[in-house]
Amino acid sequence: MSGEEAPTQQQQPEQEKTPDEPPPSADAAPAEAPQGDSGSGAAAEEKPLTCRALVLIGHGGYDKVKLQVKTQSKPQPKAGEVLVRVKACGLNFAELLGRQGLYELLPAPPVTMGMEGSGVIEAVGEDVKDRKVGDRVIVLSRSGMWQELVVVPTNRTFVMPDEMSFEEGAALPVNYMTAYMMLFELANLRPGKSVLIHMAAGGVGIAATQLCQTVQDVTVFGTASASKHETIAQGGVAHPIDYRTKDYVEEIRKISPKGVDIVLDPLGGSDTQKGFSLLKPMGMLIVFGAANCVTGQKKNLLAMAKTWYNQLSLNTMKLMQANKAVCGFHLGYVTDEQLFSRTMMKLLELYSQGKIKPHIDSRYHFEEVTEAMKRMHERQNIGKVILLPEPKKEEEKPKSNAEAGENAEINEAAVSEKKEEVTEEVKAEKD
Amino acid sequence: MSGEEAPTQQQQPEQEKTPDEPPPSADAAPAEAPQGDSGSGAAAEEKPLTCRALVLIGHGGYDKVKLQVKTQSKPQPKAGEVLVRVKACGLNFAELLGRQGLYELLPAPPVTMGMEGSGVIEAVGEDVKDRKVGDRVIVLSRSGMWQELVVVPTNRTFVMPDEMSFEEGAALPVNYMTAYMMLFELANLRPGKSVLIHMAAGGVGIAATQLCQTVQDVTVFGTASASKHETIAQGGVAHPIDYRTKDYVEEIRKISPKGVDIVLDPLGGSDTQKGFSLLKPMGMLIVFGAANCVTGQKKNLLAMAKTWYNQLSLNTMKLMQANKAVCGFHLGYVTDEQLFSRTMMKLLELYSQGKIKPHIDSRYHFEEVTEAMKRMHERQNIGKVILLPEPKKEEEKPKSNAEAGENAEINEAAVSEKKEEVTEEVKAEKD
Repeated sequence: MSGEEAPTQQQQPEQEKTPDEPPPSADAAPAEAPQGDSGSGAAAEEKPLTCRALVLIGHGGYDKVKLQVKTQSKPQPKAGEVLVRVKACGLNFAELLGRQGLYELLPAPPVTMGMEGSGVIEAVGEDVKDRKVGDRVIVLSRSGMWQELVVVPTNRTFVMPDEMSFEEGAALPVNYMTAYMMLFELANLRPGKSVLIHMAAGGVGIAATQLCQTVQDVTVFGTASASKHETIAQGGVAHPIDYRTKDYVEEIRKISPKGVDIVLDPLGGSDTQKGFSLLKPMGMLIVFGAANCVTGQKKNLLAMAKTWYNQLSLNTMKLMQANKAVCGFHLGYVTDEQLFSRTMMKLLELYSQGKIKPHIDSRYHFEEVTEAMKRMHERQNIGKVILLPEPKKEEEKPKSNAEAGENAEINEAAVSEKKEEVTEEVKAEKD
Repeated sequence: MSGEEAPTQQQQPEQEKTPDEPPPSADAAPAEAPQGDSGSGAAAEEKPLTCRALVLIGHGGYDKVKLQVKTQSKPQPKAGEVLVRVKACGLNFAELLGRQGLYELLPAPPVTMGMEGSGVIEAVGEDVKDRKVGDRVIVLSRSGMWQELVVVPTNRTFVMPDEMSFEEGAALPVNYMTAYMMLFELANLRPGKSVLIHMAAGGVGIAATQLCQTVQDVTVFGTASASKHETIAQGGVAHPIDYRTKDYVEEIRKISPKGVDIVLDPLGGSDTQKGFSLLKPMGMLIVFGAANCVTGQKKNLLAMAKTWYNQLSLNTMKLMQANKAVCGFHLGYVTDEQLFSRTMMKLLELYSQGKIKPHIDSRYHFEEVTEAMKRMHERQNIGKVILLPEPKKEEEKPKSNAEAGENAEINEAAVSEKKEEVTEEVKAEKD
């Protein structure tokens, strides 16, 4: 099903002059005229440039994410900020939820999504000493990364090792931080433990599996559809389980009658209950998503209700008798900047030691964002789906390891020439 | 209120010949005729001896725990078991609950309570190689320790360091294992963290405070009544809070506006909700008791209902948004024998290094068990309340650091001479 309609779904870039709301803090600011007190007068004096951005124009299906080209003056980072030219961005499940209107941390449309990316610093704010123009950096943000130019706080940028590609850099923050904080901050992963990783071929799944390998004698059970088993087994999943054809609870009990020590649950609903039941005493269940809520392209009230209804509800008496721990985790709600820095430093160290390496599933130019979202939505991906701000070139070769050949015939030139003025349309949708 | 009526409440030992139910596994067996297949015929040939035991004869107030003296033959430990002459036992909150009928792990009365003790091995089973007669050991059990002679599985005994007293040995298992497993198995206590310890002057509270000192830069907040503050501050509580006169949530927020990383909650009910609200993101609440259930001497349905009604009830969505973890812990439900051994080895190592040392609040002979229970029930104790199987001697000096002089005038001789046959009475209560 995936990718077949790709050529006809290629988006046409749209042009916008003046986005009308400032981003909330910790989000990547659209790189345009300096904001706030300085007003837009000063910026008008500078040479205008264009910036490609993916904009969520309303909640709903794939068509709500539009490629727009903004014409603007060169942005000036303020004190403590840097301007980054984005080379690659990560796509996350949170953005599928965001598009459907199910991600409450995302500002209301029109808004540019995107929580992570990598690129090159083009300008630094007045007092910035520890970053310089030309630095290759990873950027973590709450939103706003799906555009060519962003202004971000310096402490949300992390200098990349020389040997790391921009795609790897963009694939690292959300998935690996999520996996790392769950396994080592919330859970206390130690030698000899066992871990159940759902969606083991997804971005977090692969990251978690790699991180489990950094601890001695950790046994990983992973659910994924059968076609992905070879890859996840190579990555360190000792027991891949096809959740589509088998009851994973039964399968795990056959191998480990007492269950597992840690369950990483991005699914929610009845799977959370199953995960809780699978825990050994002193075990920990970490719920970090509700993928079961997302079924169709648009918000599905029935799926949500079902997931909600079936979610694990606990009282403390029950927990005491079970000697079990239940946690929620959501990177978006982490506010401890030191924790971010510490974790990223640790991850970069593990990367340099060759102990972790992001697995890139596929690359899509901004024009192809619909295909990218579909690929993740339909769980076709193994590892990270990357978005590239750079326009697709006419002669470009197939972008995806997995979809070789499918999109080779796309003629991007015709698309990139046609730019529309859509500011009014976007405003109307917002009201 | 405590201790004043002690002399008149001294119990009279009662005599019992044939307790009528075998103990469940992992409980300390009454040391009498070999059980099960071998029947009581063989035992009759051996020289009879007496064994003092505290027996719970029914659920209710203090008077339900009776001192009985059983006449029996010398017990023979089976393969894998040892016979221990008990020198000291610990009193725990679980036994107050058990007496009221609120501790479901305890077998039905008549039953001997007691989860921990220390003593000397008097006999070993056939294949026992790693313990020998004369070894001083700590014993951990599910019940049955409040008697002079017990037969227990060898793996539930731990050889004591020479410098450890029997009282210290009896004070160690339940409190320190509970504190250790919570702080280091469930939570992931690391340098720089903060911990709220309720009932900081209790057995678990003091143990947890000492264990927190083994990690660098851990800040301990502790609730206790004002009279205990000096002691707990000496033990390592940086911020003692009098929960009787102050709102501890407010007090903690004044010192640490973001809250704390770990809350150890033996209270339940509305305190669990407060604890959850006090957690920093990535923090963990561990509920390990429901002391708020216990108000009067007997089961209080209103207090139970209130505690139950106010208990924290959670769904996973709420946990995700909060980035918090909630655990239940109950040592009685831990079934991992390796975990027991590993933890006890670690504790004995810390003891030998001088890093932990049980704080003995007071010592009571079996005859004085009512006073002992009252002392804990009324939260008079600072640290561990110890029960001594040995009969109280006429000339004995005051037994408790805290209650010096109060019971010095007790004449025990008259009491210990009078033995009653109560087997029938006990049976009747059971039906």
